[in-house]
Amino acid sequence: MTIFSKIIKGEIPSYRIAENDHFYAFLDIFPLMEGHTLIVPKVETDKFFDVSDELMAEWLLFAKPIAKAIEKAVPCNRVGMCVVGLEVPHAHMHLVPINSADDLNFTRAKLKLSPEEFKQVQERIIAGL
Amino acid sequence: MTIFSKIIKGEIPSYRIAENDHFYAFLDIFPLMEGHTLIVPKVETDKFFDVSDELMAEWLLFAKPIAKAIEKAVPCNRVGMCVVGLEVPHAHMHLVPINSADDLNFTRAKLKLSPEEFKQVQERIIAGL
Repeated sequence: MTIFSKIIKGEIPSYRIAENDHFYAFLDIFPLMEGHTLIVPKVETDKFFDVSDELMAEWLLFAKPIAKAIEKAVPCNRVGMCVVGLEVPHAHMHLVPINSADDLNFTRAKLKLSPEEFKQVQERIIAGL
Repeated sequence: MTIFSKIIKGEIPSYRIAENDHFYAFLDIFPLMEGHTLIVPKVETDKFFDVSDELMAEWLLFAKPIAKAIEKAVPCNRVGMCVVGLEVPHAHMHLVPINSADDLNFTRAKLKLSPEEFKQVQERIIAGL
């Protein structure tokens, strides 16, 4: 079972943003920017483009209101999106509020936020949903 | 009219990969990696997450066979995906064959390919569709 499946099942705690039958969204604990959110399908698939057509059709519709809530919750030019997928064999999408291309650069050092900071941004995003 | 609309209309030449009623896919002429492809909806919208729900539901289904063709055409671990959108006010998605997170780092220098190299990778991707 991947670490994301453990998070979805609640075996590992997470800052949950939203959830439906097929997807789970939560704050990345190694964020590039405050508000950096991950969207993961509940079914494990390694590569993003191997995900079923049914989920592919739903994924961006699930992501859209979350991205808009992040954009309201965090000062930014817009919300960027990225799928890299080289570390955890469970397809996932990053939503990151950005002001420059470097804010989506996964090679740079991640932010260190306190639990209180995570909770505050979680609450602000959820309030905008 | 955005530069992407001019490309879609054929007023600016492009290395076309695929097209349907709603989307146009072509090689990025400032590629991070050989095979780097852009997908653009034919309707102009600045921010990706302002695109209509109808197109959102179709976008990844249009992208999926193209991503799989890129993965066959170019040696790589997998195809990554990114939406940044800070330069052209016409929502677009990058599909990039990657071996490391740095291959999706938009702050790094882009490759310079010859027209012959673009044509060859275009043909290899189209052959895999």
